[in-house]
Amino acid sequence: MRALIVAASLFEDSELLVPYYRLKEEDIEVDIASIRKGTLAGKHGYRVEANLALAEVEPERYDLLVLPGGDAPAALRRDPAALAIAKSFFERGKPVAAICHGPQILVSAEVLQGRKATCHRSVAEELTRAGAIYEDSEVVVDGNLVTSREPADLPAFMRETMRLLRRPDGDAEQLAQAAV
Amino acid sequence: MRALIVAASLFEDSELLVPYYRLKEEDIEVDIASIRKGTLAGKHGYRVEANLALAEVEPERYDLLVLPGGDAPAALRRDPAALAIAKSFFERGKPVAAICHGPQILVSAEVLQGRKATCHRSVAEELTRAGAIYEDSEVVVDGNLVTSREPADLPAFMRETMRLLRRPDGDAEQLAQAAV
Repeated sequence: MRALIVAASLFEDSELLVPYYRLKEEDIEVDIASIRKGTLAGKHGYRVEANLALAEVEPERYDLLVLPGGDAPAALRRDPAALAIAKSFFERGKPVAAICHGPQILVSAEVLQGRKATCHRSVAEELTRAGAIYEDSEVVVDGNLVTSREPADLPAFMRETMRLLRRPDGDAEQLAQAAV
Repeated sequence: MRALIVAASLFEDSELLVPYYRLKEEDIEVDIASIRKGTLAGKHGYRVEANLALAEVEPERYDLLVLPGGDAPAALRRDPAALAIAKSFFERGKPVAAICHGPQILVSAEVLQGRKATCHRSVAEELTRAGAIYEDSEVVVDGNLVTSREPADLPAFMRETMRLLRRPDGDAEQLAQAAV
């Protein structure tokens, strides 16, 4: 099983690191893709290595897309490769987990029409304008989509993301294998 | 099920936040205790609320003790209440998870004689002098004790900590209940 985190500098550190470590706890391989390959610095100064440029990503190789928040999504939403990646996950019905400002990328990718979702409160208006049904909850799950509002929601966000990865449509077996 | 994190300002942010959120993902209640009640600031600027003073802690109420690293353990190891808490967990054979500089508290509590453990490399010498059998591994499990070296070890650290909480000595049932 493989997960992709799409990030850029000024990511919200805990919203990237908590999913990253949680997925690796399950022996899931995690790639980090950004506008360019190389070191990204979070708002709190943590550094992570983007091992892929967005343009290099083959989305169909991944079982999960994670979109952390912070100031990164404002840059990423203007990158056509980031939007193409998000669209690919929605077309294939594959899990997408977006938190805080992360759903801004989904707004720009125009994949939220009729979907229940949440996000940072400052993003709620544009989420609604993009056709989403906004809920002010710690986590909202709608099909392949898991969304949360902020770092304090990370326990619920990761609980539902892991549950989605384990759902009985073939992925559960892969997760069991990865956890051996 | 209940976990206790012992911390102070200048904790290593990810070494506190990752276990904190991971335990809450399992619906485990988590208290944070420090020298005094109130707000603690991590090295990277994250703020967490210590809801208990160390002197108020009743260690027998908890199933797990977590000792994050950073500069906090240097202050905590001089606090007799912190050492008494650590000793209580070892006397009862209850899980203790310590990472990076966290094991310094266990050195001062004199509970490491003959125990296999790891820690930040700068702590290795004093760990050995305290009678521990030091290993340079991402995670070392010896009975009730789980130790790791640094933030990059967090996936292995949490994998083994969760495994210890689930082991079949009565705690597994509690965890299953907590996860409902």
